[in-house]
Amino acid sequence: MKALRYENGQLGLTETNAPRGEAGEAVVRVSLAGICNTDVEIARGYAGFAGTLGHEFVGVVESAPDGSLVGRRVVGEINAGCGHCQLCAAGDARHCPRRTVLGIVGRDGAFAEYLSLPVVNLLVVPDEIEDERAVFTEPLAAACGILERVEIGSDTRVAIVGDGKLGLLCAQAVKAQSAAAVTLVGRHENKLRIARARGVETALARELPPEWQGAFDVVVEASGAGNGFALAVGLTRPRGVLVLKSTFHGATEIDAARIVVNEISVVGSRCGRFAPALELLARDAVDVASLITEEFPLADGVRALQRATENGVLKVLLRP
Amino acid sequence: MKALRYENGQLGLTETNAPRGEAGEAVVRVSLAGICNTDVEIARGYAGFAGTLGHEFVGVVESAPDGSLVGRRVVGEINAGCGHCQLCAAGDARHCPRRTVLGIVGRDGAFAEYLSLPVVNLLVVPDEIEDERAVFTEPLAAACGILERVEIGSDTRVAIVGDGKLGLLCAQAVKAQSAAAVTLVGRHENKLRIARARGVETALARELPPEWQGAFDVVVEASGAGNGFALAVGLTRPRGVLVLKSTFHGATEIDAARIVVNEISVVGSRCGRFAPALELLARDAVDVASLITEEFPLADGVRALQRATENGVLKVLLRP
Repeated sequence: MKALRYENGQLGLTETNAPRGEAGEAVVRVSLAGICNTDVEIARGYAGFAGTLGHEFVGVVESAPDGSLVGRRVVGEINAGCGHCQLCAAGDARHCPRRTVLGIVGRDGAFAEYLSLPVVNLLVVPDEIEDERAVFTEPLAAACGILERVEIGSDTRVAIVGDGKLGLLCAQAVKAQSAAAVTLVGRHENKLRIARARGVETALARELPPEWQGAFDVVVEASGAGNGFALAVGLTRPRGVLVLKSTFHGATEIDAARIVVNEISVVGSRCGRFAPALELLARDAVDVASLITEEFPLADGVRALQRATENGVLKVLLRP
Repeated sequence: MKALRYENGQLGLTETNAPRGEAGEAVVRVSLAGICNTDVEIARGYAGFAGTLGHEFVGVVESAPDGSLVGRRVVGEINAGCGHCQLCAAGDARHCPRRTVLGIVGRDGAFAEYLSLPVVNLLVVPDEIEDERAVFTEPLAAACGILERVEIGSDTRVAIVGDGKLGLLCAQAVKAQSAAAVTLVGRHENKLRIARARGVETALARELPPEWQGAFDVVVEASGAGNGFALAVGLTRPRGVLVLKSTFHGATEIDAARIVVNEISVVGSRCGRFAPALELLARDAVDVASLITEEFPLADGVRALQRATENGVLKVLLRP
């Protein structure tokens, strides 16, 4: 089968064996996959991963130990645990120390004709969610994961920093999952408009009123940029929470004194559970379709990854 | 009166007017004061403060609107709020946006013969706490403040990084205020011994077992050094809490990706309330006397501040 792989410091489309599915695993024929900034960083050699890239997908089960799944349209949580440790036993493999992660750690990913994942990772996609929206389940789940890490009530003032695809999903997810006032701070009027259409307040980073300094209870850093982090710290009120959502590569400079003096909590947030994201997609509570910039055939994967890094581009999809 | 002041980029002992005490304030004759790393940083020009240094003290009330305090031995919380905002109304001036802070922000400090503070900031020192221990109330309160910011139960595994005076107080305070197992990680056997005598486990940073990586529920960074922060991140378990206690000066490099991937919470912690610290001192639950390296007369304040920066030195005291 065809697969977009990063090996020996090189990204390329190669012919490779289709997965057969280990014990407890299903083989999924990929219908559509999405490119994430993490894929771009892996292809730059930042993450130490070698293999098939990609962790955002929707597909159809080709084979599975549980035959009833065959032919069903699915998405899949990306962390595959050891199955034995305390965390896995509690049903959450996301921090299993021996986990593999689809297309990120020790497991071939979704930029291929087929992938394999443990059956327990798969969720059937409701019919009303077409592939072009279902492929957003993974990043939307990551956005929903914010609510796992911080309490947001109706009187919580929330700001999201960064109007890239991650910020747009975070802003919409928090808005849809809470009664809070949510403000998205970004640099692109055309991107901010997408969130505004779903009830999110928006503001241009260069036009923030001075009184917003220290005015937000919860601030989500979703820009992935050092100056975005500094802006997020500035917006957070004393004893407020700053949710760190983007995985910066390399070292980031922080003003630790400000975090101590204002007693801010900086809370890391990575993967979320898929069920809340599917629920939001099923009731069309978030607009993901507007985030699609372009679709490429898998055969043009190298060009697609390049396209994903260009200015102004949101989601780029790959179709095997 | 004599005062050790930092002005126009210069540290020096000067003759200045004694405070008269504004409305609602008491004038305190300083009996003994302690030098903190923050004082050293102010004297290096890092903090933008100009005036009399010092915020750790014990003294005797000279005059006060409430006459009953006159002649009493007191310590004083260092944040003086506006008295009108929501935070001040709730009895906690520590995050009042218009606060002054003794010897740190807009208010002359304790390295002088007299200081003034709002009467509401003062706490009478129980007779059983002699001056040489009472002068540790402020930094010990800061250590006790950890418990305000993170829950520590009997099964919480706690590590403190840094065996300077801050780390030694944090380790002892957490140990005395909880039923948790507390481990102090440092570089100096003679300093670690002080905490060990009070039931704290200790370990040399260069000899940490590999299995301690990611093994602690709560880690307190009290070293103030960049490599101490990296060590603290490494010790924190996935979804654990890293309490940031030291105010680093300037920018600190952090591995933000690790904080996101392991979903760590980095929690800033600054000042604590004085009552729990006085309670610990009154029942001799922590050893602060062993932290005193040397005492200088206030007249030798410049030399004393220099001494406080030397290797191996813990607390340096100043006596007016």
